[in-house]
Amino acid sequence: MRWQVDINSDIGESFGIYKIGMDEEIIKYISSANIACGFHAGDPSVMANTVARCFEKGVSIGAHPGYPDLLGFGRRYLDVSPSEIKNYIIYQIGALQSFAKVFKTKLQHVKVHGELYNAAARDEKLALAIAEAVASVDQNLILVGMVNTAMQMVAEKVGLKFACEVFSDRHINPDGTLVSRKYPNAIIHDQDFACKRVLRMVKEGTCEAIDGSIVKLKVDTICVHGDNPQAVELAKKIRELLENNGVRIMPMSKFL
Amino acid sequence: MRWQVDINSDIGESFGIYKIGMDEEIIKYISSANIACGFHAGDPSVMANTVARCFEKGVSIGAHPGYPDLLGFGRRYLDVSPSEIKNYIIYQIGALQSFAKVFKTKLQHVKVHGELYNAAARDEKLALAIAEAVASVDQNLILVGMVNTAMQMVAEKVGLKFACEVFSDRHINPDGTLVSRKYPNAIIHDQDFACKRVLRMVKEGTCEAIDGSIVKLKVDTICVHGDNPQAVELAKKIRELLENNGVRIMPMSKFL
Amino acid sequence: MRWQVDINSDIGESFGIYKIGMDEEIIKYISSANIACGFHAGDPSVMANTVARCFEKGVSIGAHPGYPDLLGFGRRYLDVSPSEIKNYIIYQIGALQSFAKVFKTKLQHVKVHGELYNAAARDEKLALAIAEAVASVDQNLILVGMVNTAMQMVAEKVGLKFACEVFSDRHINPDGTLVSRKYPNAIIHDQDFACKRVLRMVKEGTCEAIDGSIVKLKVDTICVHGDNPQAVELAKKIRELLENNGVRIMPMSKFL
Amino acid sequence: MRWQVDINSDIGESFGIYKIGMDEEIIKYISSANIACGFHAGDPSVMANTVARCFEKGVSIGAHPGYPDLLGFGRRYLDVSPSEIKNYIIYQIGALQSFAKVFKTKLQHVKVHGELYNAAARDEKLALAIAEAVASVDQNLILVGMVNTAMQMVAEKVGLKFACEVFSDRHINPDGTLVSRKYPNAIIHDQDFACKRVLRMVKEGTCEAIDGSIVKLKVDTICVHGDNPQAVELAKKIRELLENNGVRIMPMSKFL
Repeated sequence: MRWQVDINSDIGESFGIYKIGMDEEIIKYISSANIACGFHAGDPSVMANTVARCFEKGVSIGAHPGYPDLLGFGRRYLDVSPSEIKNYIIYQIGALQSFAKVFKTKLQHVKVHGELYNAAARDEKLALAIAEAVASVDQNLILVGMVNTAMQMVAEKVGLKFACEVFSDRHINPDGTLVSRKYPNAIIHDQDFACKRVLRMVKEGTCEAIDGSIVKLKVDTICVHGDNPQAVELAKKIRELLENNGVRIMPMSKFL
Repeated sequence: MRWQVDINSDIGESFGIYKIGMDEEIIKYISSANIACGFHAGDPSVMANTVARCFEKGVSIGAHPGYPDLLGFGRRYLDVSPSEIKNYIIYQIGALQSFAKVFKTKLQHVKVHGELYNAAARDEKLALAIAEAVASVDQNLILVGMVNTAMQMVAEKVGLKFACEVFSDRHINPDGTLVSRKYPNAIIHDQDFACKRVLRMVKEGTCEAIDGSIVKLKVDTICVHGDNPQAVELAKKIRELLENNGVRIMPMSKFL
Repeated sequence: MRWQVDINSDIGESFGIYKIGMDEEIIKYISSANIACGFHAGDPSVMANTVARCFEKGVSIGAHPGYPDLLGFGRRYLDVSPSEIKNYIIYQIGALQSFAKVFKTKLQHVKVHGELYNAAARDEKLALAIAEAVASVDQNLILVGMVNTAMQMVAEKVGLKFACEVFSDRHINPDGTLVSRKYPNAIIHDQDFACKRVLRMVKEGTCEAIDGSIVKLKVDTICVHGDNPQAVELAKKIRELLENNGVRIMPMSKFL
Repeated sequence: MRWQVDINSDIGESFGIYKIGMDEEIIKYISSANIACGFHAGDPSVMANTVARCFEKGVSIGAHPGYPDLLGFGRRYLDVSPSEIKNYIIYQIGALQSFAKVFKTKLQHVKVHGELYNAAARDEKLALAIAEAVASVDQNLILVGMVNTAMQMVAEKVGLKFACEVFSDRHINPDGTLVSRKYPNAIIHDQDFACKRVLRMVKEGTCEAIDGSIVKLKVDTICVHGDNPQAVELAKKIRELLENNGVRIMPMSKFL
């Protein structure tokens, strides 16, 4: 038997003179990139450079649309109506797709950013607006989100493929949702534990929840971070452990 | 013999709660619309509504990208490098194209806005960056600009069709350029005169310049405005006079 | 016995080329102006012109700070932390105060805008951050808000004077809060009824709530709108009725 | 005989999640800080923290207003009319002054940022608009700029004190202006040379221009940078050399 999984990371989050993220490092360990589209982060030139870098490295690209809140980096809840959100998503996907066209390539997926990701996980109307936006632009785009969320439900509804995402450094509740960052044990700091946990999720489809119970889950793509050297190190270790255990790393579109 | 010409107008320039322009009126008299893309004006929801309105009325749509200066409405020169401008244009075209996709339609043309239009008319490097941006996204897009400008030159260079634009309410110099708004006689206030002048341009390919000399010029598209009732009235009169004199009004893509 | 009350309105909400509100009309009927500070609306030149107009007409000026969301006109809830809000308020008050200085005048009050007004009415931490911001800049500024809200409580806590505001066109619940706009009877459309209701509030300190019960309330300032001709008409009628019934209209700082 | 001079640096240029500059390092070596005001860089919380840090370290604070162009970091020429610029400056000074008030302190000076600094050096109308803005807010503010520029002229005109600024790492032309960054020898890379050059400027009031000629100049304040470790190192060396040679470092307001 053979296993395969995608590894994704949020990149292209710099803005103007402001640099953020170790994009050129993290890109070595991922198969899919979520690229900011200028609303919560990113700007046209950052997007151009990021798409070029991904194209060169063979990393599949996806849109990472967020709230129009650069000052808050898209991490603050903004009460946008579903119809407005739909248009924000269409806009941002199109902007990025345009850079993809320059390289005669296409977007593979859409993963919404930050607090919009959280809000859409729990709010079905919002999630539906997002899914409809994605489907209206390109029915072949894969929607990325967590299992058992509103996002997963709506993907099916509008006929989009859905990629189940897990986070390499976050504990989960028995229902598969993330343990809130408000709790001290939300983040996994032990890198070896994080690596083994990811391997188990990929190969066995199970994960130990924060209360010790065993949760079944499907893993299509693993989210890793490139914010700091430790995060990049973790991404590297995860990739190596997976590959050393017979798991092939490839863009989600190859197997979904 | 039969004549044909396009009539275009800048629409979709509202932003959030702020409304500007009599879009629903002017749209009755035009065959092509230049739609703001969110940098100098417009927002995702305005774009969505504007594309929907054009689609419904059978008006061809084009991108109207501008400087990232909402506060100045794109009317102030901003010293952006050609490589940055290229990315701004790619971004804005893509954002609008995404809304076109929702209606299974395509963009017909690109006309840059405001001071960027003026700057690109005289600065070949800037113009080339714009033309390359357009061509890199879609080689079939028509570039709109004035005759004898850097924009016209670069269109040929990058292999884009070029649409020659004239302004219904502006006097021209002997070289075909617009009389600067700094001069009191820049604007034509007499609507009948403006109408006859446009008719002559379309049917004879000539225009009387501000100094009385006769200028030869090619007219593909006539720019009209929808800012106020008088402007809409002029657009209506121009369209009627042209049609009553055997000129068919149609989107530029039909004959270019 | 004599009565006195302030009439306030939100003005200076234009932005760049975008004009909104009938400022030059509504200003005739008010004694205090709430001026947008560039976050949800307004820009430096609009602020300069608005302060100049108020100074000329003898209308007292106050800051009208809002969320940093021009696209949503500050009407969408944004989950900003209290410490961030505090800094947003300090910033916006200072920006407006600077224009006041140009005219050797001072700000009289601060009234937060839109959804921030609503959020601060119910969220004591947010309200406290706002009140602390105001007090830290100038202990003499009057805080404007509704009775029985978190805003009123915190004003006392930080030692700021508080002005009780009522809305001329809105029904209230038995607890003095506004009937939500979600309900069809939230808005009062009958201008004569609205006028008499305001007069009763000012002279008797009572108001009939939506359920017919009588609510006691203190009225320091009445909010009127200048968005459209009807609103301006209502403002004019209210002022006339009050003045004809012995109520003097004056800036809140004159009697608080 | 005793000498005294001010050392200034641009700080508080971070924005939201984006960090830039080694503010906590460079602040050790300066006597005056130019704080970004939210247009080209900085945000309300960055401003609050920066003012707090300066207050704590005894560093005098000044406003560092710039073009409203975060994407270009205020380094791109924007053709803003003098009357608009005047309002932008009033706005930004006020916003910062508000944070100063929180600490019961005052702004010492105003130095415009980036390309606005350059534009105002050569364009007298623009410079006058800036100087009038500063004077209208507070006649005691010191205007900072280069000698022999439009800025120096207008300071006198409007009755503002003017502080002559030199740059520790830039060669000058025989007329005292900076050698343009377009030329390879614009920047001084030899730190010892830069230090000795600054010492000579302060003690002798002369400087060797790029062509070897000796230029007389008055030095009130020396600009140092905190962008990178080398820049901070240079600032440290300059301060040490000056102090070791009998020059006292103090805020410009102490001796102007």
